[in-house]
This record gives sequence, structure tokens and C-alpha cells, in this order.
Amino acid sequence: MAKATLAEETAQAVIRYIIDNRLLPGDKLPTEPEFMEKLSVGRGTLREGIKLLAARNIIDIRQGAGSFVSPKRGIPDDPLGLTFIYDDNELVVDMLDVRLLFEPHVARLAASQATEQQRAAIMEQADEVERCIKSGESYIAADARFHRLIAEASGNIVFGNLTYILNTSIAKNIEITKDAQRDSNTIRYHRRIALAIKNGKPNDAASDMSMHLQLLREFVREKMH
Amino acid sequence: MAKATLAEETAQAVIRYIIDNRLLPGDKLPTEPEFMEKLSVGRGTLREGIKLLAARNIIDIRQGAGSFVSPKRGIPDDPLGLTFIYDDNELVVDMLDVRLLFEPHVARLAASQATEQQRAAIMEQADEVERCIKSGESYIAADARFHRLIAEASGNIVFGNLTYILNTSIAKNIEITKDAQRDSNTIRYHRRIALAIKNGKPNDAASDMSMHLQLLREFVREKMH
Repeated sequence: MAKATLAEETAQAVIRYIIDNRLLPGDKLPTEPEFMEKLSVGRGTLREGIKLLAARNIIDIRQGAGSFVSPKRGIPDDPLGLTFIYDDNELVVDMLDVRLLFEPHVARLAASQATEQQRAAIMEQADEVERCIKSGESYIAADARFHRLIAEASGNIVFGNLTYILNTSIAKNIEITKDAQRDSNTIRYHRRIALAIKNGKPNDAASDMSMHLQLLREFVREKMH
Repeated sequence: MAKATLAEETAQAVIRYIIDNRLLPGDKLPTEPEFMEKLSVGRGTLREGIKLLAARNIIDIRQGAGSFVSPKRGIPDDPLGLTFIYDDNELVVDMLDVRLLFEPHVARLAASQATEQQRAAIMEQADEVERCIKSGESYIAADARFHRLIAEASGNIVFGNLTYILNTSIAKNIEITKDAQRDSNTIRYHRRIALAIKNGKPNDAASDMSMHLQLLREFVREKMH
């Protein structure tokens, strides 16, 4: 028990170190001997603390290379705590209702706020999703990235992280709804959304995002019944 | 490295066990010897796996009593990954913009969907927040619980969990804005929101929630500049 508490204290000390030194994702942490001295802890305790932080997606341990600030920025694998929700169908519709509330607004913000570089990246990502679909590859990751790029272009930090979180659930949506109709909705509306953002048309971007998600919702409900 | 992987595999096996047996928060896991046999792993590996799950808020280890499914349901302590966002002022406003988008909607749903029991619990919680404020106690936890009860009464699983997540950040809001004006906004509008939900008035509930958050947002911005 004392040992667990010590490991937890060490984990908190490592977090403080990261914050105080304003380390960014990908930055390397001090070596083990350096860190043991800085935090005044033994090797075993330091390793336990680092393991706790790895389990929380705050640190990546790369064997032989050291420990690094994780690009996941402490965002967990199941941020919404959905691992233990057992009614999957209901969950997919609930998730779409949440996305319908957020994502049209986020697309509207992106159309007015995005930098030129962000607009170009969103267009390219629409191309990438289309390429995956047409070649029959899985497009789950590419789809999630498309929605995330839009949220990051909204200029609101919390929307960016939140959309990332909601999109970790997109895999579930796609699995249930994968078919030709769903794929053509995605290709058509991703393209329209990307164009509206590129051309600085906030209302079009919001409307196209809304249509994209509403068609998906209708489709999921028809499959369910 | 092999050991870390084995612990992770064990953690996954424990999650599968929880799902397969549909265990709920607070349920006890099998004893160590039983679990070692079920999962065909040694004591050290099992303990490492359980520790990983405790770090992810999936399991609570109670010394001497055993391991239990955590009421946190795997929702992490920093679900939005805000530990490493360094501009706090900007973060508070961004957070309020997100809450403004969805809490009025959630209050509207609660006013039409909540059970009698849920309506009563929301009223009681408004009383509790008021009591804390008037007695000078910290009301961070009571405030978060008020907003969470409303979200849970919306009938949408994802809104419930999401509000819990956004409310882990309410502490930050309150710290920045704690003063008499803020407190009276909270007392007045919590009461109005609770009454609108109790009386089944969706538009009033949405409007009162919107006012509550907009006044808070205005207040935070004035403090910032």
C-alpha cells in the first residue's frame, strides 16, 4: 500500500516536471539516473510511476530509447467510459445525437476561423477518405482524422479534444453501418463539407455536416428496426 | 517488455471477464486465487494487470477487501487531456462555449424526459448547492453533481458521461470566478432550472440554463481583461 502511494506520488511529480518545463508531445524525459536524482526516488519507484503514466496515455515508454511525452496527451483510450455500456445500438444513436449537436457548429466555426493550411489539410483528408473507400480499405482512421482536423480548425481547444474523444467511437458507427449507401453519403458530404470550409462558407459547412450526420442517423435506425 | 505485455493482456482479459459477466460498478471481482485460475496467470502478472486497470479508473483496489468494478466506469481523471494545456484563461472560456452549446439542450431534454424521482433529485441538489454557498463551504462537488443529474435525466447515455467529463473542469471555472455575484447567479439560476425541469417546461429549462452559463461567461471575460 505504501508502495502504491509512493508510485502515485512519483507519477504526480513527473506530471509537475512536464508542466513546469512545458514539455510537448514527443519530447524526451530525462534519463532514469537523472530523473531518480531530480525526484529523489529509487529506480523501482520511478519505474512504477512511469508505468502508471503510460497506462494513462501521458507517457510512451520506448524500449531502449527512453520515455517520451505521449502524443495522446493523457487522453485515454476510452474517455467516455463506454467500455461498460452494454446496449450498443442505443449507444450509436445517442452518440450521433451528441455529434449532431456539436459537429455542425464546429464546421461553421472552422469555415470562418481555419488557416489556409488547415483548409488545405481538410481537403486533402477528404481525398484520402475517398481513396480508402474506393480501394476497399478500412477508412475508420481516415474518417476520424477528417472530423478531428475540422474540430482543430474551430479555434476552440475543448472542441478539438472533445471531437477526438467522440471520434474514438466512430469505429463502432462504421462497423454497424458499413455498406454502399453509407459509403456514398460519406464521399459526397465529406467533399461538400471540405469545400464549404475551403471557400469560407460557414452556413454551408454547418448544413452539410448536419446532412451527413442525419443521413447516417436515419440509416442506423433503419438497420436497427 | 514481455512482462509488460503479459500484464496488458491480463488487463484485457479482466475487462472481458467484467463484460462477459455484465458486472456493474461496485461489484466484487473474484478473489486472487480464483482469478489466477480463471485467467491462467501467476499472482505477479495478475496484480500488475489489476494495477493497470486501477490506473485507468476501471477497478478500485481496496486493501484487505479485494478488487471491485469502479463507479468511475473507466472514465479517467483527465478525460479531455487538459493536464497539458497551458493557457488556463482561454481554456475556461472555451469550456464555457462548449457547455453553452450543449447544456441548454440537455436541460430541455431533461424537462421532457426525466422521471419523477429524477426531477425530485435535481430540486434537492439545487437546495444542497444553495446550502453550501450560504454556509461558505466549497460547492464545487455539489455544483458538478447538479449538472450531472440533469444530464443523466436527458435519457442520452453519452450526454450523461460527457457532462460528467466537462464538469471535472468546473472546479477550474469556480476557482477563477468565486465571488458574491457569481454565487447569486448560481443560486438564482440553479433554482429556476430545477423548477422548470420539475414542472416539465422544456423551453424554460433551456433558457434558464443558457442564461446561467452566459452570465458566467460574461463574468469570466470581465475578470480576464
